[in-house]
Order: sequence, then C-alpha cells, then structure tokens
Amino acid sequence: MQRIELKAPYLVFVGDETRLTYAKTGRGIVDWRRELCAGQLRLTAGACDLGLPEMSVSEAAAAGIGSLVIGTALVGGSIPPAWVATLAEAARAGIDIVAGLHTRLASIPELVAAAGESGARLVDVRIPPANLPVGTGKKRSGKRLLTVGTDCALGKKYTALQLEKDLRAAGVAADFRASGQTGIMIAGEGIPIDCVVADFISGAAEILSPDNDPDHWDVIEGQGSIFHPGYAAVSHGLLIGSQPDAFVVCHAAGRTHIEGWPHMPLPSIGEVLERTVQIGALTNPALRCAGISVNTAAVPETERRDYLTRLGERYGLPAVDPLLTGTAAILDNL
Amino acid sequence: MQRIELKAPYLVFVGDETRLTYAKTGRGIVDWRRELCAGQLRLTAGACDLGLPEMSVSEAAAAGIGSLVIGTALVGGSIPPAWVATLAEAARAGIDIVAGLHTRLASIPELVAAAGESGARLVDVRIPPANLPVGTGKKRSGKRLLTVGTDCALGKKYTALQLEKDLRAAGVAADFRASGQTGIMIAGEGIPIDCVVADFISGAAEILSPDNDPDHWDVIEGQGSIFHPGYAAVSHGLLIGSQPDAFVVCHAAGRTHIEGWPHMPLPSIGEVLERTVQIGALTNPALRCAGISVNTAAVPETERRDYLTRLGERYGLPAVDPLLTGTAAILDNL
Repeated sequence: MQRIELKAPYLVFVGDETRLTYAKTGRGIVDWRRELCAGQLRLTAGACDLGLPEMSVSEAAAAGIGSLVIGTALVGGSIPPAWVATLAEAARAGIDIVAGLHTRLASIPELVAAAGESGARLVDVRIPPANLPVGTGKKRSGKRLLTVGTDCALGKKYTALQLEKDLRAAGVAADFRASGQTGIMIAGEGIPIDCVVADFISGAAEILSPDNDPDHWDVIEGQGSIFHPGYAAVSHGLLIGSQPDAFVVCHAAGRTHIEGWPHMPLPSIGEVLERTVQIGALTNPALRCAGISVNTAAVPETERRDYLTRLGERYGLPAVDPLLTGTAAILDNL
Repeated sequence: MQRIELKAPYLVFVGDETRLTYAKTGRGIVDWRRELCAGQLRLTAGACDLGLPEMSVSEAAAAGIGSLVIGTALVGGSIPPAWVATLAEAARAGIDIVAGLHTRLASIPELVAAAGESGARLVDVRIPPANLPVGTGKKRSGKRLLTVGTDCALGKKYTALQLEKDLRAAGVAADFRASGQTGIMIAGEGIPIDCVVADFISGAAEILSPDNDPDHWDVIEGQGSIFHPGYAAVSHGLLIGSQPDAFVVCHAAGRTHIEGWPHMPLPSIGEVLERTVQIGALTNPALRCAGISVNTAAVPETERRDYLTRLGERYGLPAVDPLLTGTAAILDNL
C-alpha cells in the first residue's frame, strides 16, 4: 500500500477541546465527508459539538466503527494524558486510531499495547508510506487539476474540495487527492507530501493520482508555493509528479508577504501562473491555468465581486471566491 | 550538530573488493583529501590498492585513527558478513565506523554492541542530521558558487572539488560543501540533501553553507537537475537554500536523454542556465552563471578543445573540461 488509507466509518474524537478553531480537522471531516462520520466522542460536556451523534467506545465498537479520528490539534501537537485511556479502550476494541499530531501515536506504550492486543492500527497521517518510488515522468491516463498558491494557508485544500464537489454535482467523475494531513483525514486516503524524503517527492505525487478513466478528474490538493523560501521544493515535486492538465492559482486578497516570512514579499498571481506553466511543462506541455481562486475575506463585503471581476479581466481567466461565487466559472473553463 | 561531521584521520577500508570502479568512494577520498588518509585496510591480498600505508585495526588504534571509512560500494549496498568482525574490532577500539550504503550500520547488532562498548559512533552518511530547520530565505554573508547540471552523474561533485582546489591555489579562501554521501566522505562533513524530508530541503541547504567572511567562497556540490523528473525538487530546494552568487552548469558531451529515463530528452545547457537564474533569483537576485563545465570524454580527443571553444562562444561564457583545461577560465570570471 503506497497511500495512507483510513477505514470508515469514523468516530470523530473531540476530547475536551472547547475551542472550535482547534477542532478544525474534525470540522473539516464533517463539512466535506459527513457520510463517513458515524458519531463524535466528547470527554467533557463543554467540548465542541460537531453535530454528530454522541457515541461511546463500546457503542462505536458495536456499530462497526473503522477509525477513531482525532479531530483536534493542540498547540505543540501533543496528546494529553487524559485522552490516553479512552484511545486505548478504542484500540483494544479493534478500532484504528488516526492522528496527525507531532506526538507519534506509536510513542505512547499504552496505545501500542492496546493496538497489539486487537490488531488495530495506529495511523499517523504525518508518516508517509514506505517504499515510495522515484518519479518517472511518464504520462498517466485521466485528467488532473492541481491547486497552487501564492503562499501557504490560503485555500488550496478548500478550493480543491469545492471543485471536487462541484464537478461531481455536474455529473463529472472526480476525486479529491489529499497531499497533506488534514486533507488525508478528510479524504480517507492520501500521501503527506511534505513529509516524504526529498528524492521521492515527485514519485509520491505520481502514486497519489494514478492512471484513471479518460474523462475522470483528479483534483489534487497543492502544497506550499513555488516562490516559498521554505517549501518551494515540495511545490515543485508535487507539480511535476501530478502532471496536471489544469491548475488553479489560489490567493488571499490583501496578503503582501509570505506568512511567517515578513522579509519575503508575496509573488503576484501572474508570477505564480507563469512559473507553474514553465515548470509543469516538463511532464505536461499542455498544462494551462483554468482560473484563480481568492479568499476575499479581507476585501470590504460590497467590493468583493468587483475585485474578482477586475482580477479576472486582468488575467483573462475566471476569478472566483468559492465561498462567495462558487466555482462554476472555473468548471466552465475546464 | 546540524551537519554530519567525520573524525579524521581516516583508515580507508577496502575489504576484499578487487575492482577499482567499486572502490570509487575510497579513491575519491584519496584523490581529494590525501592529507586526511593515514592508511588503508585490505582484507585480502588481491583487494584494490589505493596507495596508502597498510594498517591493521590495532595499528590504527595506536595511531589515533578517528574513523574507519568504508570506501567501497557493492551493488545493492550491503555489508558482507565477512567484513563485520573487522568493523566490530575497530568500533570496539573506539574508532568511528563511517559508511554510505543502503544497509544501515545500526542494523548490524554486532556493530551496535561493539560501538556501545567504546562510545565509537556508527555514522551513516545517508542519514541527515535531526532537527533541520525550514528555509528562511535570509541573506547570509560570504560568497557562494553552486554546481548545477543538465542531468545527474556528470561531474557536479568533481567540478566543485576542482574549483575549491583551484581557488585555494589562487590564494582565495574556499570550502567545498558536500550535499551527497560520497562528497560528505571526501569533505569530512556535509548534509545528504536528497535524504532530507521534503519540508526541510532548503533549510538544510542554508545550514550547509553558513555565514562566512565576505571574501570566502563556499563551493557547493549540486544534486540532480532542475529538469529531472525524479530529482528536480531536490535541485530546487538546494538552489534557493544555497542562495549562490554564481553557478556553473555541468554537462556530459553527447548525452541526449536523462540517464535511466530514456523517454526524457536532456535539457539544453541554455535551458538549465535560464531556469536556474529564474528560480535562484528568489533568494539572490544577483545570481549569474560563471561558466560551463563539460565532461568531454565522448568527444574525439582531437576535437575537444574546439568543442569547448564553440560552446563558450555560443553562450558567451567560459567553457571548460576540468580534466582537460582546468577551471582557470571560470575562476577569472568570478
């Protein structure tokens, strides 16, 4: 198995987390894959309510839950000692434990022992599969779209998920392909590209979107930015391994610098567009930009549609904010 | 310690290897760092002679040898059982064991036990240091030159080592910076960039050539090629993390395709030059090409100088074959 694959249905674990912003992984799974979520497990009455049926470990085991997915992320990425007994109980009941935290599940002896008893898996979605190949550059069948960005954390995953949803609604066969930990927990499978050893980045990206039907679209979650001083190499390998037919440039209106790198000015959408075409041509010379997806939260509400219209005219491309306009204009351009 | 650092002097271990092509790591160390090599250890009389004094483990221990360096590479990269007793004897005597093979030294219990007794290290130069940072993109002091290539395995390491030698001979402070396993064994330190986790490639490259005196040159060993379907991401991260002031494009005359990727045509020197300037400008807008270094072995002997002259005229740059012409023309252009 060269992709991480999670067992459904899920029990989303909220622990004792009371702040919704720290439960965004759980929220993302519920927002985008409600059909995979059978219940939620909260350790305290005040913990975040994701709107799923409450379920204890024994109820989950009886209901045939495949995975307990930890849907929260603490600063520092640790697993609080107060959670361990419940996680171990689930593992002992044969339920896989899934997490994307800095603390490795396998570093907690009680969990290892519990999983060992039942054969349940401890799945760290930050750990890439073993035996990834080196990229071949060979053409694969099917169609692919990659979301790229002017920076990190500005909607590449969200845009890809919305495109998948809208393609499917339009009757087009499409699959979101997750390249990061939250995306993997939402999609139930994927490869954490940024955790792969350097030599295998493009090879991992090839595995992520394998051969498919000629009319099928893989919508691949982008990572980093091709102009990012820390993560550009990840973006480069993901781009040439994905060999996309189309890409969407994602941007956050008003952002002026790489977030966390105040000395690095943000590249323009046009620069990202041009560089993506240059680099991506190595494995798909027909690569083209299908549109621009902007988080316009920083633009005054009454000016957002004008902002998108002007941006679209400037680049001669559909410019959308998925939350405001949907992605129909990009779909029309595929 | 964020770079691998080896203890000198070295005892170069040849084992029972009789074929010089399989002892090229050992030969490289002797060719480029003769002053670090105190002796060689051969298990059989017919094993390759690297021209160093013969030395047993007990003689090596008495002579204060810092590291036994395995100077051969078998197909498959394993460590033959017949070697283990000698390697363990050295480790027990307090001598570090250094290897760059697929088989991890730490996977051999006898070696782990021997090293544990004395405190000697088992150094796998394929394993990057822990706790590498994410790239910052911040300007560092000192000057840097990076060798880049139209492909793998065409002289990037050799060219960098020759440039270091010639710069030093010209009275310029210069250090070869090793980014691959053989280079690390030659230099005695470095980071195996292609083994680093994706998120940390450019950060590792920043650590590899730290701040230095304003007139000091770091000559950085390149990896892969920016047009390589498997390894371009490594080349990209190494380029922006190195933030070179100058680069040399390395090429093998007559090569038409990426070696091992017969469906991928080789990029031209001009394409590599242009793309390197485009990408490298992110962290050093003043980046420029200082010359072209070609392995002309495939050109008839009488035509090599003409070939280099024509190439130099075509690109308006010094074109050298380090073995044939030296690198003086490139040095003049720095």
